[in-house]
Parts: sequence; structure tokens; C-alpha cells
Amino acid sequence: MTDIQRLSTLDADFQPRLAALLAWDSVSDDLVQQTVAEIIRAIRARGDAALLDYTARFDRWTPATATELELPRARLAQAWQTIPTDQREALELAVARIRAYAEHQKLESWSYREPDGTLLGQQVTPLDRAGLYVPGGKAAYPSSVLMNAIPAKVAGVGELIMVVPTPDGELNELVLAAAHIAGVDRAFAIGGAQAVAALAYGTETIPGVDKIVGPGNIYVATAKRAVYGQVGIDMIAGPSEILVVCDGATDPDWIAMDLFSQAEHDEDAQSILLSWDGGFLERVAASIERLLPTMERRTIIAAALGARGALIQVRDLDDAITVANVIAPEHLELSVADPEAIVGRIRHAGAIFMGRYTAEALGDYCAGPNHVLPTSRTARFSSPLGVYDFQKRSSLIMASRAGAAELSRTASVLARGEGLTAHARSADYRGEAS
Amino acid sequence: MTDIQRLSTLDADFQPRLAALLAWDSVSDDLVQQTVAEIIRAIRARGDAALLDYTARFDRWTPATATELELPRARLAQAWQTIPTDQREALELAVARIRAYAEHQKLESWSYREPDGTLLGQQVTPLDRAGLYVPGGKAAYPSSVLMNAIPAKVAGVGELIMVVPTPDGELNELVLAAAHIAGVDRAFAIGGAQAVAALAYGTETIPGVDKIVGPGNIYVATAKRAVYGQVGIDMIAGPSEILVVCDGATDPDWIAMDLFSQAEHDEDAQSILLSWDGGFLERVAASIERLLPTMERRTIIAAALGARGALIQVRDLDDAITVANVIAPEHLELSVADPEAIVGRIRHAGAIFMGRYTAEALGDYCAGPNHVLPTSRTARFSSPLGVYDFQKRSSLIMASRAGAAELSRTASVLARGEGLTAHARSADYRGEAS
Repeated sequence: MTDIQRLSTLDADFQPRLAALLAWDSVSDDLVQQTVAEIIRAIRARGDAALLDYTARFDRWTPATATELELPRARLAQAWQTIPTDQREALELAVARIRAYAEHQKLESWSYREPDGTLLGQQVTPLDRAGLYVPGGKAAYPSSVLMNAIPAKVAGVGELIMVVPTPDGELNELVLAAAHIAGVDRAFAIGGAQAVAALAYGTETIPGVDKIVGPGNIYVATAKRAVYGQVGIDMIAGPSEILVVCDGATDPDWIAMDLFSQAEHDEDAQSILLSWDGGFLERVAASIERLLPTMERRTIIAAALGARGALIQVRDLDDAITVANVIAPEHLELSVADPEAIVGRIRHAGAIFMGRYTAEALGDYCAGPNHVLPTSRTARFSSPLGVYDFQKRSSLIMASRAGAAELSRTASVLARGEGLTAHARSADYRGEAS
Repeated sequence: MTDIQRLSTLDADFQPRLAALLAWDSVSDDLVQQTVAEIIRAIRARGDAALLDYTARFDRWTPATATELELPRARLAQAWQTIPTDQREALELAVARIRAYAEHQKLESWSYREPDGTLLGQQVTPLDRAGLYVPGGKAAYPSSVLMNAIPAKVAGVGELIMVVPTPDGELNELVLAAAHIAGVDRAFAIGGAQAVAALAYGTETIPGVDKIVGPGNIYVATAKRAVYGQVGIDMIAGPSEILVVCDGATDPDWIAMDLFSQAEHDEDAQSILLSWDGGFLERVAASIERLLPTMERRTIIAAALGARGALIQVRDLDDAITVANVIAPEHLELSVADPEAIVGRIRHAGAIFMGRYTAEALGDYCAGPNHVLPTSRTARFSSPLGVYDFQKRSSLIMASRAGAAELSRTASVLARGEGLTAHARSADYRGEAS
């Protein structure tokens, strides 16, 4: 029997119960913070030597020299050649679709001229160098390599550096194959906070980058937060979440499996179903009971559904949309007859899967959009990872002589109002000369 | 005699000297961190009561109730009516230009359909609510209100909440007037880490927001970093910087004043001049000597130029561009004959001021582009504040029946490769039904 919570928006205590369900505190404890701070200090002070020490200690692997930390491109190509054909074809199709979608996201420079000849605009440029963190061990996902690497390459990043730990020297062939096909330029067999620090500050062997992206454990996440400012980072991801809104006409087994697909990630993952059809909620609950014992990862699924899952009865469609906007989910499935009629009312969601045929799993792997998405209600203010995360803008201003005369008067008045007279005089010089 | 450093790219120790010049560590000390953490805890636990306590303690002002913390819209309108006419006209012109430029930045939703009917795209939405921090006291800049508020309003943010501390009850009329004309929806007379915490978590009186923008002192910056994740933040700004690249044909007094305009902000501000004309560097040095005694803020300017300023001799234009890209400055002036011929080679800069007539001060106030810019070499990976900072994207995926059949096969193979069989079965259901 799965103990999935039942809520109803009609309950008097619905708001606090929903808040409790969604609560997630991403703050690392002091011990993790201190460990990470020490690792970063060591990498900055001792470079490669510290990196080798930590690799021996945490990954139980002792390369003779730092150059052995690099995984040569030929090694990635070899992995690509040796994986099974069906996986190679699946990766190829995924790459093509992810790239085609990413091309639509590319920001372009723009500018305009005013009547007096003054030019204004923004120049868009790619990052020089980006770092991609890929977890080792059980959470090594080739799809994650594609989703992080392809937008960087489409943006035109000069050099893309992947790091992936090899605990006990173990390498994941699918991850290496994905790195090959996604266009990773260099790869290093390092991980943990030490890899993040090496990418942020550079060592004799590891090139320093401008931005670090990719998922990782609490040490990696804490290290990313700590080096933010020295380099850019993508986001600090919380546990994965799915919210399904269903009108009751989708096969309940499909919806149960969609909830499972999120819950199987880890025990903290969150799966929530909203429906105004109370009978449907019961049918999904029955499907959960029946299907759960057949799942390979049933222990994790049961733990996640029990701790953070919920079936929520809402009054009607409007009520469902209101609750969905409060939850601001990472993944939102609109499993309804006419999703296009309501998608415009969704104000906050990382990705919206529209219609009964659009399982989240399709988007996780190969539909095209990125699977790196804002979690823990951060869709209220942030976006999926995209090409735009590997580009940045520089404002362009070129005042004509006449434009400078006009602008200098206004700038001078405002600068004097703020007591900044060097600003005012700098503007005045241009006005007087015009 | 101003002790501004002289460097040359021909010097053997140029690289380490440049690195030392640019070094800036933004990390707050432990005492600041602890104080801020305590303030955030108190605001979360006690809401308005804690906010009133801190306001009494730090701003030496004791409102009878929390509702008195609000500055009514009529109070902002009154400020607008009572400021001098020339300032009102200057603010009006600045608002019109900043808004016109911002309109060019607005992101639009997009989507496309594939031959089998599958729809892919991104839906762009504004933030529901944004918070704008405005410093009190000497650093209260009306221009900063305009630069932060206008992009939010152009983005369509539902409600824009401004906070501004009133130390000893003192209000800056220009700041209130700027808030009025920029369209601030509600304003509260609170500041410091307590205001940031109130905006991030909400209190009985202060509405919780989705993102906090705007400059502040070390307590405000530390609080913003601490609440990042609960809400979005703009950036953690370091000291302001200018890099001028000059071919030697601009009036040296103009360039000296441009360097002053940055240095007058505070003692940590950075002003650097690059030229391949050694005689010109001497002429600018002479202008600095002659003009400095005439400046109202000469003490601050002298301190900043002495501590972090530099005149750098480079070999030629190419060398100047290389060094500029290493510095990745917040503000870059290309004071040369043909800036359009070289601007495409600038890879990293917050804003680029092109030509002899485009003093940075014009851009600081009214040219149109935002003056909130990435500092401390973060232009390598980040962008000026813009409308896009108040919008976010949701991915859209709607698989047709045929599309689901195609995608489900690929998703299933990749999911099984990652050992995620619930993902695979969720995809399989859609494939089987198609």
C-alpha cells in the first residue's frame, strides 16, 4: 500500500498543507560548506598537486601525473564506436532534435540609429570557454551530457571542457559516447568540489572556464555556489518534480507511470497529480498500487511518493491552473483534451508537456527542448537552460556630435542632482564641443 | 602628485601586475555573514515585528505600526511635483530614452510545428512581482531607480515594489520623484538586510517578491546572495570600473575627466587608460594633475586612482584589444577614430562607448542602455540588466500521435540505457497507442 498524500483545495488547511508539501531547503550544512571551502582553497593554492590528492582520496584512483587526468578525444570516439547500434542511433536522433530546437534560441546582435545619427544596440557574443560537470557513478546520464553540451556548441562557445569523476577508475561508455557526439572539446576524469574549483580557477592542467554548468551532488552544488562570481553557473538544482493536470480522460496507467518516472530519480523527487475528477484520482491510485510492484526501482518510487507525492482534488480547471501557478513546477503535464486553450494561462513552469501523448519522458530525452529546468518553484523567475545561457550581451552606444550635445545637457543636470560633478563635467566637455 | 600606476605590455612582469591590479575579492567576512543570517532568520520568524525592531536600530526611526513603513503613491507624486523643473525635465527625457531602448530587448514567445504536427517552442512570461532595492543616504541615486524600474515595467512585471531606507527619517525627493515617473507600484521605507529578507520571504506588510534587483552595501549584497534560490537576484556588483582605449587624438582633458567620473564613485572604483601613444599617456597624466585640484570629490578620486587606477602603454591597437578582452571591463570607452571597425573584436564588456563624443556619463544617465552592468570581469559571462531579466521562459512540447510514436522509441532506448525504466515505460505507453 503506497501512502501517497490526498489533498483537496476545499480543505480548510489546504494552503499550509500545500506549503509543507512543497517546502525544500537547499542550504548545505556547515560541515559541507567547510569541506568545500577547504577544497577550493587547496586547489587555488596548490593546483594540480591538490587535484591529484583529492582524486586519490575521493575516487580511489592515482594517476602518475596530472596529464593522465585527461580523457583523450580518441577515447571518446572509441566509446562512440563501441556502444550498441540502437543506442548510437538513439543518441544521433536526440542530438539532431536538441540541436534543431536550440538553433531557435540563439540571440542575435541588434542596433538602431536615431535621426541625429546616434547608434544604440547590443552586441551578442558567446562565452570563450565553458565547463560541463557530469556526475559519475549511478547518476551518470548521457542525456545530461547532450542537454548541457549542445546549447553551448550552438552558442559558439570557443572551448567546452567536460569533467566526469571515475570512482575506482570506472568509466561510463555511454557518457563518453555522448560527449563525443555532442562536440565536447576536452574531457578530464575529475569530479567533486575539486573539479568545480579547478574549472573556476584553473590549474596547470585544467583550463579555467567562464561558466560551469551541469548537475552534481551536494558537494558539487555547494562548490558551484561558492565560485559563483568568479565564474558563472547555471543554477542550483533541487530535487526533480512533475505536476500532472488531468481532466480524467487519460488512461490512469499512463498517468501513474508518469508520476513514477519522476519518483524513480531519487527519494526526494516530487510527483503531484491535480484533477477535478475525484473518481479519476481513485483510478490513478489503483494503477499506482497495481503497477508499483512491477517497477525495477519500486523502493525509490515508493519512498518518493510517500514522502513528497500527492493526489490533489481541485474544484475545476480554473482551480487547477491557480494551484499549478502556485506550485510553479519544473515539469508540467497538461493531460487534457485541448491544452492549447489553456497553456497561455500558465504563468510559471520550466517545461509544459501538452496533451495526452506528450509524456515528460519524451522531453527528457529527445523531443528537443532542454531537460535542465528550474526546480523548487524557481520557475517563478528562471528559465530552462538554453543557448542564451552561453551567450552574453554588451550594450553599444555611439553618440553623434549632435546627439552628444543633446544628451550631455540631461546627463549634466542629473549628475549634479546626484552630486557627481566629474560625471557632469565629462558630459559638459562633449556638449561644449558640439 | 597623483600616484597612478604606469604599466606597459612590454614589461616582463606585465601579466602579474595586471592580475594584481584587477584582483577583487567580493567575499564577505564571517561577521557580516553571521549578522545577515541572523537578520534573515528573525524576519522569517517574526515578520513585521522584527522589521520594526531593525528599522529602529539601524535607521533610528520608530514608526508606530508597520503600515507606516509604506510610502503612499501620493507621497511619490508629491515629490515629482516639487523637484526643480530642470530635474523633472531631465528625468522625463531619461525615462523616454531608457524605455525606448528597453522595448528593443523584450523577448517574445515562439513556436514551430514539425511535419507530423508536433509543436515545439518557448512561452515567455513576465515575473509576477519584483523588488527594487534603493540605497539610502549619500548613495541614493535617482538614475538607479530609473535603470532598475523601467526594464521591469517594460517586461510587464505585475507589481514592482521599491524599498529605500530612511536613515533618521530622511527621504531623498529625487529618488521618490524617479520612483513616481518610473512606475513603481508600492514603496516602503525600509533598508539593509532586513529589507532584502522581507522582500524574499514576505511579512504581514511587505509582499514577497520573485526577484530582487538593485545595488546596496555589503550587508545588502550578502543578504541578496543568501536569499538567492528563494528568489532571483540581479547580480552581486563589485566596485565600478572604466577602461578607456584611446588612439591619442582625443583631448586629454576629456579622457582625464572620464577617468575621474569613475573614480569619484568610491575609493575602490577602477579607472584604466590604454594607449599605444606614450606621449598621450603623459598628456593625460598632466591633465590629471592640473584638473584634480578643481574637483569637488578630489579626495575620493585621488584615493581611487592611487589604489586601483593605471595608465597602460600597449604596443598597438591589436595589443589594446587583447588587453581589453582580458580586463573584460564594466564600461569600455573606445575613444578612437573609427570605433565601428573594431567593436566586433571586443568579446567581453558590459557596455561599449564608441567614439570621442560618447562619454560614459551619457550612458550612465540617459543614452538609453542600462547602467547596471557586470563588474569585476563578470562580463565574460554576464550581461547588462535588461527587460530579459524580468521575463522567463517555459518550454512547450506537444507531441502529435505520430510524433509520440517516433519519439517514444528513442526515449525508451536512452532511458533503458540509463536504467530508468519508469521513464521507458511511460514513453512506451504513448508509442504503443499510436
